[in-house]
Amino acid sequence: MPSQPSRSLAAVPNPKPGRDYEVRCRTPEFTCVCPLTGQPDFATVTITYVPDESIVELKSLKLYLWSFRDEGAFHEDVTNRILDDLVAAVEPRRMTVHTDWLVRGGITTTVEASHP
Amino acid sequence: MPSQPSRSLAAVPNPKPGRDYEVRCRTPEFTCVCPLTGQPDFATVTITYVPDESIVELKSLKLYLWSFRDEGAFHEDVTNRILDDLVAAVEPRRMTVHTDWLVRGGITTTVEASHP
Amino acid sequence: MPSQPSRSLAAVPNPKPGRDYEVRCRTPEFTCVCPLTGQPDFATVTITYVPDESIVELKSLKLYLWSFRDEGAFHEDVTNRILDDLVAAVEPRRMTVHTDWLVRGGITTTVEASHP
Amino acid sequence: MPSQPSRSLAAVPNPKPGRDYEVRCRTPEFTCVCPLTGQPDFATVTITYVPDESIVELKSLKLYLWSFRDEGAFHEDVTNRILDDLVAAVEPRRMTVHTDWLVRGGITTTVEASHP
Amino acid sequence: MPSQPSRSLAAVPNPKPGRDYEVRCRTPEFTCVCPLTGQPDFATVTITYVPDESIVELKSLKLYLWSFRDEGAFHEDVTNRILDDLVAAVEPRRMTVHTDWLVRGGITTTVEASHP
Amino acid sequence: MPSQPSRSLAAVPNPKPGRDYEVRCRTPEFTCVCPLTGQPDFATVTITYVPDESIVELKSLKLYLWSFRDEGAFHEDVTNRILDDLVAAVEPRRMTVHTDWLVRGGITTTVEASHP
Amino acid sequence: MPSQPSRSLAAVPNPKPGRDYEVRCRTPEFTCVCPLTGQPDFATVTITYVPDESIVELKSLKLYLWSFRDEGAFHEDVTNRILDDLVAAVEPRRMTVHTDWLVRGGITTTVEASHP
Amino acid sequence: MPSQPSRSLAAVPNPKPGRDYEVRCRTPEFTCVCPLTGQPDFATVTITYVPDESIVELKSLKLYLWSFRDEGAFHEDVTNRILDDLVAAVEPRRMTVHTDWLVRGGITTTVEASHP
Amino acid sequence: MPSQPSRSLAAVPNPKPGRDYEVRCRTPEFTCVCPLTGQPDFATVTITYVPDESIVELKSLKLYLWSFRDEGAFHEDVTNRILDDLVAAVEPRRMTVHTDWLVRGGITTTVEASHP
Amino acid sequence: MPSQPSRSLAAVPNPKPGRDYEVRCRTPEFTCVCPLTGQPDFATVTITYVPDESIVELKSLKLYLWSFRDEGAFHEDVTNRILDDLVAAVEPRRMTVHTDWLVRGGITTTVEASHP
Repeated sequence: MPSQPSRSLAAVPNPKPGRDYEVRCRTPEFTCVCPLTGQPDFATVTITYVPDESIVELKSLKLYLWSFRDEGAFHEDVTNRILDDLVAAVEPRRMTVHTDWLVRGGITTTVEASHP
Repeated sequence: MPSQPSRSLAAVPNPKPGRDYEVRCRTPEFTCVCPLTGQPDFATVTITYVPDESIVELKSLKLYLWSFRDEGAFHEDVTNRILDDLVAAVEPRRMTVHTDWLVRGGITTTVEASHP
Repeated sequence: MPSQPSRSLAAVPNPKPGRDYEVRCRTPEFTCVCPLTGQPDFATVTITYVPDESIVELKSLKLYLWSFRDEGAFHEDVTNRILDDLVAAVEPRRMTVHTDWLVRGGITTTVEASHP
Repeated sequence: MPSQPSRSLAAVPNPKPGRDYEVRCRTPEFTCVCPLTGQPDFATVTITYVPDESIVELKSLKLYLWSFRDEGAFHEDVTNRILDDLVAAVEPRRMTVHTDWLVRGGITTTVEASHP
Repeated sequence: MPSQPSRSLAAVPNPKPGRDYEVRCRTPEFTCVCPLTGQPDFATVTITYVPDESIVELKSLKLYLWSFRDEGAFHEDVTNRILDDLVAAVEPRRMTVHTDWLVRGGITTTVEASHP
Repeated sequence: MPSQPSRSLAAVPNPKPGRDYEVRCRTPEFTCVCPLTGQPDFATVTITYVPDESIVELKSLKLYLWSFRDEGAFHEDVTNRILDDLVAAVEPRRMTVHTDWLVRGGITTTVEASHP
Repeated sequence: MPSQPSRSLAAVPNPKPGRDYEVRCRTPEFTCVCPLTGQPDFATVTITYVPDESIVELKSLKLYLWSFRDEGAFHEDVTNRILDDLVAAVEPRRMTVHTDWLVRGGITTTVEASHP
Repeated sequence: MPSQPSRSLAAVPNPKPGRDYEVRCRTPEFTCVCPLTGQPDFATVTITYVPDESIVELKSLKLYLWSFRDEGAFHEDVTNRILDDLVAAVEPRRMTVHTDWLVRGGITTTVEASHP
Repeated sequence: MPSQPSRSLAAVPNPKPGRDYEVRCRTPEFTCVCPLTGQPDFATVTITYVPDESIVELKSLKLYLWSFRDEGAFHEDVTNRILDDLVAAVEPRRMTVHTDWLVRGGITTTVEASHP
Repeated sequence: MPSQPSRSLAAVPNPKPGRDYEVRCRTPEFTCVCPLTGQPDFATVTITYVPDESIVELKSLKLYLWSFRDEGAFHEDVTNRILDDLVAAVEPRRMTVHTDWLVRGGITTTVEASHP
């Protein structure tokens, strides 16, 4: 059965919870929809975190990011929502989500939000 | 009223039909769906052509490329279809469509088709 | 009705005022006029800020930057004025405006001003 | 007295008319206005030619390109007009004009026209 | 059931056999073993071809390249063998295999073989 | 006799134990196996450390990294194990291991762990 | 009347003395003469400063840097002299002069001096 | 005794006159003076040739290029003169001189002349 | 027993003599001595060839290039000698040797010779 | 008389001892010999320092680095020795020596040592 976009994120146990170490996941394959015009937007998403008890399962991360494909979302809002969802799912010691959006109106926008 | 994805392409008169000259349009904002897995694919599309009586209207090109967003399409097939549609719409003296797809299974694929 | 250059900047509510996060907008499409010679100058403008209650609305930012097209402005002055106008419009927690000017007399100039 | 934009192009004698050699002039400082929306467009212009009896005087070329600043012009049209004007002014053995336009609607466009 | 390395290559029908067009597949994930020392070698493999009746199925290409992981193979030999196997599998109108090997003894080697 | 992959790491005396200085070793030639799918994974490994009494012998490091070739290992786990093994072998004043993995599911992952 | 090289530097009033902001001027067009061999040396000069009451007038900076064209000057000395002259002329809050010299004897040299 | 700029070029015997082979010399250290304004101009000079009986002696080439330091010269003229002088000095089978000039008036110029 | 520099080159049988294919070997580790000054020179050497009955054995190529370490050699001469020696050793269908030398007197030199 | 490699380093008076400023010298022309195999090693050496009473004379630095050409030296050891020799010769306020070695066994190594 093929995969489906999904808003749920899977956490798996951190293999080395006794150490502060950093994981970074980056994908240029993020697209959502502009809430004003209904037209597609494209971004590269970078997630950097220090895990606590759990790490993000990569396949569920892919399906989670896919779930925005048909959703209207402002740049600033979607960046903070991805951060909130990931923090809720894996409860990292700290995490940063960075989004880098393709040109709109001649302007390139990036947004970067961190927890805590 | 916001724009909509559209399979129709607008042609406008070539301002200099007496000269062979080259136009190149490139966008990293192309996405469609893998017909086997249903998962999104992403590509950069480059269209290079020598116009005859008509040139491609840019906004209609944007809406045309958007129309593949929910469609299942193999890399080789979609490249040839974009070429066929553009050739039918503007009847260029010659045209090349080049697609450059993001990594799948560790492999990057490009496809390039030309008319005539 | 086509858009017009405009000195007014629109602010929209910050979707996540409870968090310090950073937004960066960059455009290579800035041009104004040298007050001494009347000749055009060109710059890339980068605006980085941490929003408080408001964020900058992107279309109004585009029209605002456009409004300098026919105005005489020294590099150092225009950078500080853009910062002042944006600070007045969105009252950010902090903001930096960076301008990177094309070569004049063999010399490349950049200016960077921050609030507070 | 400060310089002014000017549609006239100055030709100066070729110092080596007995040899086919190539001159290339490039500037990222070209801007004109979209005839549909009235909004500014930006391009890098590259002129490559083999002079015959004359070469292009650089200051007049700068003032000539400046003269498009307030003019509405489609990408394909303005490229061919620059070529036509330069061919009329210096009657080169051969010449190519290449324009590389900043992103509009997610699409980057280049146009390249040659004489003869 | 997980995938396995496999020396067999799958061919699927060319969706546009009436046109000469080019497909290029590239992967940095190729490794085999030096027949003299038994130590691992690493290469980027690029396959460029014009299909006739068939195109290469990407998953089978991945499993095929994986099948060299434990095999001893000289740079020149393995490049020609990949070409021979792919030509036998999809009978392309023309094909080039290019391998770019990581440094050994301070020397970087590339090999490029074409059919016909 | 050809070399063999080996889990043991050789330490040689630090030629300048009286000074804190930094050594960095980087190789793009690391490959292991995904524990879930059995398919090969590829990474660039960077080891940065300040030696105490010992430094890492380079040939033993090469054979050590080679020993993961047929082993199933998650990205986060293998990075921490390399760090643990190297810390045990050379007891550095401080050390960081950084792994940069090739794309899986459209996502690039890096992991970075430090001691102490 | 054409410009002349000049050791004098013009200061103009800072348009925003109430704010600490940074100006950076860079030119690859610096040349002087080696005091030992009499042969030409070439450098890129970068001046970064926070103005107080005055900013550097760009044309006088160009003529000032030109004035070194026939002067013998060691790399370390000329960098400190440019800094001293600029500090005397515009009395900045802080300033750095960085020079990056082309290869001599296989060695590339840079010098960086700051005030205060 | 220190070297001096010199308009004379030394030729030394070609060690392999029986074979057509190519030599390329490039230097970013060329400067001359604008004949109109008296201000310095800067260029990278690239000389590519197939020697016949002689090759260019490198030190004499350095002193020759240095000899333009105080001379007024238009871009197109100086390129052709360097070619003429080098052709007279070493009588190559073929030669190309390419000059790449730093920005003037926002425009970058290159000139390329070949013999025969 | 450690390896030694050696002027002899080993040829091994071409695994695919029935096909014209290209091999390229590149190393940045070439050094010899200037015959005039006795000082070291450094180059990147690139060898591209289509083998006939033999291919170059890589270890012997490394030892061969090493053998120039203490030898006086002009750029043009050593390039032709490497080509002559390799042609004698492996009798390729065609071969090109390209050398790219580090800066001397502000000038970068490359030499490229081909057989036949 | 041609220059000779030399282990002695010349110091010349610092022209601006009253100011802390930084000098950086970089050369890609360093080679020594592996003490285990007798084979050549290659590195780029970067020396960064704040001079006190003396600066390094560049020609003596070149001859000093040349003196390692026939000497066996481990990466970590030679980096610390260069630092020790330079510190002894010019007694800088602070100094860093960074060496960046070409690939051996698939591994790139850098070493960085500082005083004090």
